[in-house]
Amino acid sequence: MLLPLSERTKNLISKLENFMDDFVYPNEQLFDQQIKEMENRWTIPSIIEELKEKAKQAGLWNLFVPREYGEGLSNYEYAHLCEIMGRSLLAPELFNCNAPDTGNMEVLMKYGNDEQKKQWLDPLLEGNIRSCFTMTEPQVASSDATNIQSHIVRDGDEYVINAKKWWSTGAVDTRCEIAIFMGKTDPTGPRHEQQSMVLVPMNTPGVKIIRPLTVFGYDHAPHGHAEIHFENVRVPITNLLYKEGKGFEIAQARLGPGRIHHCMRAIGAAERALELLCKRASGRVAFGSPLAEKGVIREIIAESRIEIEQARLLTLHAANKMDQEGAKSARKEIAMIKIVAPRVSLNVIDRAIQVFGGAGVSEDFPLAAHWANARTLRIVDGPDQVHLRDIGRLELRNY
Amino acid sequence: MLLPLSERTKNLISKLENFMDDFVYPNEQLFDQQIKEMENRWTIPSIIEELKEKAKQAGLWNLFVPREYGEGLSNYEYAHLCEIMGRSLLAPELFNCNAPDTGNMEVLMKYGNDEQKKQWLDPLLEGNIRSCFTMTEPQVASSDATNIQSHIVRDGDEYVINAKKWWSTGAVDTRCEIAIFMGKTDPTGPRHEQQSMVLVPMNTPGVKIIRPLTVFGYDHAPHGHAEIHFENVRVPITNLLYKEGKGFEIAQARLGPGRIHHCMRAIGAAERALELLCKRASGRVAFGSPLAEKGVIREIIAESRIEIEQARLLTLHAANKMDQEGAKSARKEIAMIKIVAPRVSLNVIDRAIQVFGGAGVSEDFPLAAHWANARTLRIVDGPDQVHLRDIGRLELRNY
Amino acid sequence: MLLPLSERTKNLISKLENFMDDFVYPNEQLFDQQIKEMENRWTIPSIIEELKEKAKQAGLWNLFVPREYGEGLSNYEYAHLCEIMGRSLLAPELFNCNAPDTGNMEVLMKYGNDEQKKQWLDPLLEGNIRSCFTMTEPQVASSDATNIQSHIVRDGDEYVINAKKWWSTGAVDTRCEIAIFMGKTDPTGPRHEQQSMVLVPMNTPGVKIIRPLTVFGYDHAPHGHAEIHFENVRVPITNLLYKEGKGFEIAQARLGPGRIHHCMRAIGAAERALELLCKRASGRVAFGSPLAEKGVIREIIAESRIEIEQARLLTLHAANKMDQEGAKSARKEIAMIKIVAPRVSLNVIDRAIQVFGGAGVSEDFPLAAHWANARTLRIVDGPDQVHLRDIGRLELRNY
Amino acid sequence: MLLPLSERTKNLISKLENFMDDFVYPNEQLFDQQIKEMENRWTIPSIIEELKEKAKQAGLWNLFVPREYGEGLSNYEYAHLCEIMGRSLLAPELFNCNAPDTGNMEVLMKYGNDEQKKQWLDPLLEGNIRSCFTMTEPQVASSDATNIQSHIVRDGDEYVINAKKWWSTGAVDTRCEIAIFMGKTDPTGPRHEQQSMVLVPMNTPGVKIIRPLTVFGYDHAPHGHAEIHFENVRVPITNLLYKEGKGFEIAQARLGPGRIHHCMRAIGAAERALELLCKRASGRVAFGSPLAEKGVIREIIAESRIEIEQARLLTLHAANKMDQEGAKSARKEIAMIKIVAPRVSLNVIDRAIQVFGGAGVSEDFPLAAHWANARTLRIVDGPDQVHLRDIGRLELRNY
Repeated sequence: MLLPLSERTKNLISKLENFMDDFVYPNEQLFDQQIKEMENRWTIPSIIEELKEKAKQAGLWNLFVPREYGEGLSNYEYAHLCEIMGRSLLAPELFNCNAPDTGNMEVLMKYGNDEQKKQWLDPLLEGNIRSCFTMTEPQVASSDATNIQSHIVRDGDEYVINAKKWWSTGAVDTRCEIAIFMGKTDPTGPRHEQQSMVLVPMNTPGVKIIRPLTVFGYDHAPHGHAEIHFENVRVPITNLLYKEGKGFEIAQARLGPGRIHHCMRAIGAAERALELLCKRASGRVAFGSPLAEKGVIREIIAESRIEIEQARLLTLHAANKMDQEGAKSARKEIAMIKIVAPRVSLNVIDRAIQVFGGAGVSEDFPLAAHWANARTLRIVDGPDQVHLRDIGRLELRNY
Repeated sequence: MLLPLSERTKNLISKLENFMDDFVYPNEQLFDQQIKEMENRWTIPSIIEELKEKAKQAGLWNLFVPREYGEGLSNYEYAHLCEIMGRSLLAPELFNCNAPDTGNMEVLMKYGNDEQKKQWLDPLLEGNIRSCFTMTEPQVASSDATNIQSHIVRDGDEYVINAKKWWSTGAVDTRCEIAIFMGKTDPTGPRHEQQSMVLVPMNTPGVKIIRPLTVFGYDHAPHGHAEIHFENVRVPITNLLYKEGKGFEIAQARLGPGRIHHCMRAIGAAERALELLCKRASGRVAFGSPLAEKGVIREIIAESRIEIEQARLLTLHAANKMDQEGAKSARKEIAMIKIVAPRVSLNVIDRAIQVFGGAGVSEDFPLAAHWANARTLRIVDGPDQVHLRDIGRLELRNY
Repeated sequence: MLLPLSERTKNLISKLENFMDDFVYPNEQLFDQQIKEMENRWTIPSIIEELKEKAKQAGLWNLFVPREYGEGLSNYEYAHLCEIMGRSLLAPELFNCNAPDTGNMEVLMKYGNDEQKKQWLDPLLEGNIRSCFTMTEPQVASSDATNIQSHIVRDGDEYVINAKKWWSTGAVDTRCEIAIFMGKTDPTGPRHEQQSMVLVPMNTPGVKIIRPLTVFGYDHAPHGHAEIHFENVRVPITNLLYKEGKGFEIAQARLGPGRIHHCMRAIGAAERALELLCKRASGRVAFGSPLAEKGVIREIIAESRIEIEQARLLTLHAANKMDQEGAKSARKEIAMIKIVAPRVSLNVIDRAIQVFGGAGVSEDFPLAAHWANARTLRIVDGPDQVHLRDIGRLELRNY
Repeated sequence: MLLPLSERTKNLISKLENFMDDFVYPNEQLFDQQIKEMENRWTIPSIIEELKEKAKQAGLWNLFVPREYGEGLSNYEYAHLCEIMGRSLLAPELFNCNAPDTGNMEVLMKYGNDEQKKQWLDPLLEGNIRSCFTMTEPQVASSDATNIQSHIVRDGDEYVINAKKWWSTGAVDTRCEIAIFMGKTDPTGPRHEQQSMVLVPMNTPGVKIIRPLTVFGYDHAPHGHAEIHFENVRVPITNLLYKEGKGFEIAQARLGPGRIHHCMRAIGAAERALELLCKRASGRVAFGSPLAEKGVIREIIAESRIEIEQARLLTLHAANKMDQEGAKSARKEIAMIKIVAPRVSLNVIDRAIQVFGGAGVSEDFPLAAHWANARTLRIVDGPDQVHLRDIGRLELRNY
């Protein structure tokens, strides 16, 4: 890769790869089995807690914490780790590096006051509780943030919240204790100053988890994606994050690093799929020779390698630009990887599924689950169309 | 469409469309709900049996039965009905037109003796029992039929069967009573005369349903896809279908009409997705205007319409050629639609999902489930690669 | 193909195919050579006039003339002939079936008065003169017909014309005697009633051929594509076609059959390319075996066959719909083939070029020239984007 | 870009960009005009010699010379300059950096003896003569180097050469004085030791330029691509390059840097096309608004930007790897860029052509000529299929 990595980062990469080999891949099937056998699908299987403990001991914990809040890694450095974690759907949580908690922790680090940090950030950093982020709404096209209809109305020392939200990832998890809630405090204000963010403990009266949603048939237990209704939910005004009217700004700030993480994980998933594809092709015989010796299989392997290399370089480039010049300056690059990485990941995984045949769409290999995951990336944080529009507009600014 | 349809067919189309509007679409959510609430997911929800009764009364029953076995429709005519049924995953069974039972009934009509027909074909035609087809094996690339490893060994008046099979659709259904089993009676014979087909009642000792398989996250209850092991299963030699060594021939004959059905259903699913897409785009507003007024949305609608029209014409053309000249003569056309129809269906559904955002990958609309279904079509009955190879080879024969 | 053809049409197809084999393909290289050796590239090589005579004798002349103006063929029938002619860039003129003369003759048949027909239509039908159509303008996006800036100003019994036009195909040909000119007679009228069409003899003072244009590196001699300036060109008002304000209507009417012709010729070019590809692949050896035995070559052959079949069916379907229900009713179908046929033609020819290597981009085979031709089809009569927009809009009308 | 550039390189980039703005772009039309007006198209237009002089004075001469043969730039550094030169088809020769002369000079530097260098390398470095490279043969698939049929037979102190070659770029140029010839000295030797390279002065008796070839109608005067026959051509054995049997090795060594150059120029062409596209879209109005405000145009701009960024990063990465670890170690990366860069360039240029409409395929803008150029890149030095096969094979080595 172009820019050299620090010794510390190389060391973390090596440790992380070993951890994946020793503890993650061998336990993927066990995780699925434990989930199936749980009485309550939304509680955590024991293997997760065991492996979290091991990861802490191995010094592979909270790797995402940005440099600005401690002795963390740069985005460029962390991106390399993120790719490795993305190879298994199981992995990110083991290192306390899973969405949406990482984004929520970053928000708390950057915009939370001391009291908020103590109450919510600390246990999140410990991995003792989980959190969710409630922004998307079922009744409007939420890619246009100004469409948001949720109300946050001040009443004395309290905010009164009424809203219907969905796709609140992690909210079904029984360990989820806190939601970062986005709604409008000033529906008639300037377009990007109407919104605010408020901390809402999940056990506040009126917070109702309506149902878990599925993604291509997967419920993603134990975390899940919830439809949540907020009915006259009251929280003290001290639960406001930062300032009123800053919801959009916080949301934007949350997105930058989050997109790097999503994209590098997607690339990790693609790399894993290509590895599985190559192994399968080497071992299966049809019409007289191993699949790996057939020209059409070699071409899809080559196309996959080409796509992955380019997506990785672009994502690392975006990460580095964000490190050097800030998220705003890297806006075009970040929009580009949001298009490219999921697309490449879907392509490669789909090719692997095709080579695996029926096994590819089943639970016997992680391909179908990775595919469903990657497919949602073309929607979350704004659909492809919104990002392409942005890139086009930024490009045209020069003319 | 190019060739005119008979009055009878037009009449069936009209009745079927009405039935879909009146009874099928309005009950899709109810079906999902009944499945969720069943104690045993593999038993049939009451809504299905109610609607089957209504379909019988409406004269919309066993429409697939080929002209050669009664007063049935031509492939060209039935294709039109198949498209309509394909619009809902619920529909085909309501009219006793669902795979794999239709294919199995065709095999029994064509290759079964009177006794076999009486015992298995009659109740299948009544919709009282279900059947499965066991061909694919987990341990070999089954797209190359000569790879099949299952043994059928004659022992006196019995065949002794040992095999591991999977992706036996419908086998998990508690109503499934009979399997058409493909295995080798003569492993050293000429490549395409080694295989035979045998009827195996599901309650025969040694028939073991190991587990239901999933397709992406769907288990497709109540029918399911099973991994089945056959351990020293014994059936009388009178259970042989047709003759020893004719398994490959029967399998080939089974495929022709089945592919037309699969493809027309896939086109129906695409048409449904495009309809949903257009409705959604007309009703959602983002960045100041309805999605339907945006150029990029109009382009994906146009591309979808273009793809669907072409796929439908090609499939109808293949059906007509099969009617006129027989399946063998239409071999290239049938291979072509096997490539085109799933591809188009996946493209259109994927675009619809993108317009729906989170709702598109969820259970709230039939898009994600249709997508997963269409994805398997690129694998079942041989992966794309096998069909492309065949088309290329047939084309090159002219030179 | 789905709808049966009349005996007469089958007979024409057979005669035309024989003519192509006997006289067209064997003379393609001679034509190129004669053009190279002409003193004036814009005069007709002798081989063309010889073959025109032969085609007349063979009864293969003016096949395009629509049924409504004589005993012509339906669009559906003629489409089959058009495909065959499209296989050679040389062919259409030999049968007096080349653009833009066919479109111009149709306009004269439908909108010309007796005097206009006698003067211009008759010699065009004889193949004694050639014509051009001047609509596109260099200074505006001409896909939006309302952008047209050319003025037609009435002055007593004359129209005075001032305009800059380009891409007037055939205008450089020394035999070109008449232009159908489109300009605005009423720049402030309703959007689609501002334009009129006027007949302008090429020898009228003020008609200046500025230069021949090239398409990639081809000048398409002897016909060429001209930039023409009209400087105070005066023609009698009797040269008006039909009525003032009907220019847009005439242009629209001209397009329907023209698009069928363009598309079927594009499909013919694709079919020729696939034939050349297969022959080449059968005869060249690389890395130990003929190209035709390699899986990747078989796949591109298969994909080509699949694309061609679908494009042909859609185009024939559009032609038939135009026959049965009129061009207006077939508007969506005609827009669709305008997208599909050039796209498929480009894909297939490009694949053939790739198999031919250097020979493919050279003059030794007709591939590169066909490609350049097909590429312009994505632009002429409106770029793809305009047609996709229309299809999308028509589709959305149902919602 | 990721790795920082030296001050010297930055300085060269800046000077080169200024030179392009001041002297290259403004003279593109003049060059075309001079070529058209030459009595002999194969002699050099005066503008070229003028600008070569200016480039020398500006210190922008022989920038390609590798670090190992002087104080040259690394591949990574030179790649940046190459991209800029690639923006105009006119540019590379102005800086004595055009193919095939650069590749030939590199071969002479690396494998030539002192006498050979003095006689041919020195005047080439001065830009006083031109050279060609004769490898491809019309009668065999030359992507498989072992197919080569040309004979080099030793006869006393001479080699006797008989061969038919084509696509010898630059050979038609009247200044071309020397050919590097590849043929077989030992047709029965080990596959990759049969070939040798010999220097053949163009004025040697028996060297016959049969004809110039065209690329999509372009003859690429004044350099051209020749078909050359060698009929009993005799050269002294001292004209051997390096050793007998080393032809394949020399050819391989020649390819590495050449591919970086080709690819970076292709990216430069893409960047130029995107720039032209954006300008055109900003200035043309259709259907009520500038093209630049339409969503579909913004999407193609965005897709182009995404593709270019990725292709550039991959090519720079390959260049850097070649610098750090040698060409052999970067083999997979070099094969990948050979696929990616032409593909991206073709995509972007094609989109620009579409936005330009008729102007795009004409000579008024450099788009069509750049497209034809980029299209050949998918063929020269081996077609895509060969490189994809190699990448697939290299990837599978890990399994």
